[in-house]
Amino acid sequence: MFKIFPIKNGLENVLGFYCDGVNVGMREPDTAGDVAFIRSDEPCMVEALFTRNKFQAAPIKHFQRYPDGFETNFLLMNAKNANAMTGEQGIEDIDALFEKLGEKISLVNPIMSSTGVIGYRLNQEKIATAFDRFDYNSKNSDTTARAIMTTDSFKKELCFKIELEDGESFHIGAICKGAGMINPAMATMLCFVTTDADIPKEDMQALLLEATEESFNRISVDGDTSTNDTVMLLANKRSGAYHKEAFQEALNKILFELAMMILKDGEGANKLVAFEVTGAKNLQEAQTASRALSNSLLVKTALFGEDPNWGRIASTIGASGVACDDTTLTIHYDNLLIYSNEFRELDEEREEQAYKIMKQESFKVVCDLGLGSASYTSYGCDLSYEYVKINAEYRT
Amino acid sequence: MFKIFPIKNGLENVLGFYCDGVNVGMREPDTAGDVAFIRSDEPCMVEALFTRNKFQAAPIKHFQRYPDGFETNFLLMNAKNANAMTGEQGIEDIDALFEKLGEKISLVNPIMSSTGVIGYRLNQEKIATAFDRFDYNSKNSDTTARAIMTTDSFKKELCFKIELEDGESFHIGAICKGAGMINPAMATMLCFVTTDADIPKEDMQALLLEATEESFNRISVDGDTSTNDTVMLLANKRSGAYHKEAFQEALNKILFELAMMILKDGEGANKLVAFEVTGAKNLQEAQTASRALSNSLLVKTALFGEDPNWGRIASTIGASGVACDDTTLTIHYDNLLIYSNEFRELDEEREEQAYKIMKQESFKVVCDLGLGSASYTSYGCDLSYEYVKINAEYRT
Repeated sequence: MFKIFPIKNGLENVLGFYCDGVNVGMREPDTAGDVAFIRSDEPCMVEALFTRNKFQAAPIKHFQRYPDGFETNFLLMNAKNANAMTGEQGIEDIDALFEKLGEKISLVNPIMSSTGVIGYRLNQEKIATAFDRFDYNSKNSDTTARAIMTTDSFKKELCFKIELEDGESFHIGAICKGAGMINPAMATMLCFVTTDADIPKEDMQALLLEATEESFNRISVDGDTSTNDTVMLLANKRSGAYHKEAFQEALNKILFELAMMILKDGEGANKLVAFEVTGAKNLQEAQTASRALSNSLLVKTALFGEDPNWGRIASTIGASGVACDDTTLTIHYDNLLIYSNEFRELDEEREEQAYKIMKQESFKVVCDLGLGSASYTSYGCDLSYEYVKINAEYRT
Repeated sequence: MFKIFPIKNGLENVLGFYCDGVNVGMREPDTAGDVAFIRSDEPCMVEALFTRNKFQAAPIKHFQRYPDGFETNFLLMNAKNANAMTGEQGIEDIDALFEKLGEKISLVNPIMSSTGVIGYRLNQEKIATAFDRFDYNSKNSDTTARAIMTTDSFKKELCFKIELEDGESFHIGAICKGAGMINPAMATMLCFVTTDADIPKEDMQALLLEATEESFNRISVDGDTSTNDTVMLLANKRSGAYHKEAFQEALNKILFELAMMILKDGEGANKLVAFEVTGAKNLQEAQTASRALSNSLLVKTALFGEDPNWGRIASTIGASGVACDDTTLTIHYDNLLIYSNEFRELDEEREEQAYKIMKQESFKVVCDLGLGSASYTSYGCDLSYEYVKINAEYRT
C-alpha cells in the first residue's frame, strides 16, 4: 500500500524548506555552529509539544503568544544559551532579534528555539551577526543539525521518503539534539520535523502526540526535564501527497530512531537497554515500573558494571509502588531466565550467560509481574564516570 | 527541666542490654564482623518501622508473623546477605537458625535483621558458627556496629543520657548502617535503638514515627529504597525513669545525627546539603520540591562540580510539578542571594562568593517559592565518580 524508506541525511530533501547554521562565537568555532534557521518559502502549519517544566523558557512563551493555528515561515535556533528564567526581558529579546532579522528577509510569525545554560540573556549582538552570514536559500541540514548540539557527541538527523500506491510521494525530515537531562516526560531535547506532506490541519496534533508518546516519552538518561524541551512539526503541503496511516508510521519511526540516538549519546552512556514490563495489573502500573527501572541510579550503575545483579531490578520494581509479588515475578535478560519463583538463585551457567548478554551494546530486561495483561516498554542507558564528569563540568 | 547529653559510644551504657559482633567469614576477616546480636536480659518491648518496598525481605516477614505487641529478648543481625527475594525458604532459614541458637541461650520471640546482596539464601553453617563464639554477656557496641556495615566507610553509633529534674535518668543508645540506596521513604538503612527508659507501651509507636519522619525520611543519597530498611526501638524499662518530652527530644536528636552520618558517608559523597523549600502553597508541595532537589542527578553533579549553576535548581523545582513562578522565586545559598526576579544574572562578585560557599563541607540551598507559608527541609549530598565506582562494582 505504501513504502517508507530512508534517504540521505535530514532536512534537505523536503520540498520548500531551507536551512543553514553558522558559528557566531558562542561556541568554540572549530566544533560546530551555534545559530541556525529552518524556513519555509511560504507560511506553513506548525504543531509543537513543549516541556512540562513549570519554568518554560522564553522562546516557548513567545511561541504561545501567537493565536492558535497560526502559520509561520521562519524558525530561528541557537545553542549555548537556553534563554530560560530570563523573564519578560527574555521574550522582548526575541522580538528585538526578529526586528533585526526582518530587515534581511520577510517574516511571518517567526518563532525561536534555544538550548543551553539557564539564567542568562541572549547575546543579541553575536546572534544578529548570523543574519548577514546565513545563506537563506541553502538546504544545509548538516550545519543546522550541528548548530543545535550541546553535550551531544554526534549530530542527529534523519529523512524518510514515503511512496504511495498511486506513485505520489512525500518526505519527512528531522533534526534533533539531546544527550542529558533526559526523562520520560518528553526528555530534554529539541526536535524539529519538516514535511512536505499535504496534512489536513486537524490531523497535525494527533500525529505528533502519538509519535512522541512512542519515542521521546519513553527514554531516560537522568530523570531530569529541562525548561526548553520541544518537539515541533512544520508542514507546508508542498508535495500535494498524503496518506494518514503512512505518515503516522513514518513519523513514529523517525522519532523513535532519533530517541534511540539520544540514548546512545546519553552522557557517558555505553549501553542501550529496553525495560519491558509485562503482566502488570494496568497500563499505569506497567509504565510506573518500567520508568522506575530506566531511572534508577542503582540499576544504571549495575548496567555499567555489567553485573547481573537482578536484586536491584526486583528491588526497584518493589520500591516503585506497583502491585507485585515475588512468587509471580519473572525476570529475563533477552531470552535468558534470570529470576523466577522456582529459580531464585543464579547458577554459574546462567550467570555466565547473563554476563555475555550484559556485555552487548544493547539488550532487553523483561520483567513479567504475572498479575495482569498490561505492558509498557521504556528505554534507558547505563551511568558511567563520564556522566558525572560531563555534568560536574558542564557550565564551565 | 531535663538535660540531654552525649555519652560514650553506642549501646553499652543502656541497662540490661548486651551485644557483640563476630566475623564468620562472609566478609573479609580483617575489616569487621558480619554477624552480631543485641539481647535484653528480660523480654523487652519492640517497635519497628520497615521499608515501603513491596518486596520486603524475609526477616521483615518473619518479624510480622509475631502477634501485635509481642516482646522479644534477642535480635540477630548479619551483613553481606539481605535474605531478600528468597521466598518462604528465607523465612524457614531464620527459624532454623533460631533453633540452633536456642541450644546456646534461652530465646523469647527472637527476631532477625539482614543487609547485603539480594537473592541468595543465608549461609546457615557459617552464621551458626557465630553462636559458639558470641560473648552473650558482652556489651561490645563497637563490634556490633561494625558487623552491620555494608558499603559504609565508618561505623555509626551514638548514646545519650537523659537526666530528669528529680535526679532520675535513662539512656538511649543506637547503632546504624547505611551509605547508599538512600531515599526519603525511610532511606536504605538499618537502625537499632535500645533504651532503658520506662516507656508506656502505647507511646512507643508515636515516638518512633516522629523521630523517623524528622530524620531518615528526609535524607537522600540516590533515591532508591531497599528491601530491608528497618528502624527498631527496643525498650526494657530497666531504669524506671521516663519523661515523654525528654525522650522524644533525645530520640529525635539521636536519629537525626545518625541520618546526617549516613549522608556524610553517602557513597562517594563529599558534601552535605540542606534543601530548604519555603513559601510553598502547602506542606505537600514543599516536600515534593525539596525532595526533587535532593534526588536530582543534575543538582547532585553540579554540587560535586562546585558550580553555582542555579539554573539546575530552578529547573528541578519547575520539573517537580509544584506551583511556582519565576517572578516570586528566590534562591539563596546560605545567606547569599543567588536568584530573584530583580537579580536574574549572577554578577562576578556574587558568583565568587557562591563558589566559596559551595566549597564548604556543608551548606544550605534555600528556595522561597513566594506563594504561601509552607516549608520543608530535606538533606542530600553530591554525586561523584566514586558513587559510580562503588555501585558498578558492588556485588563482586
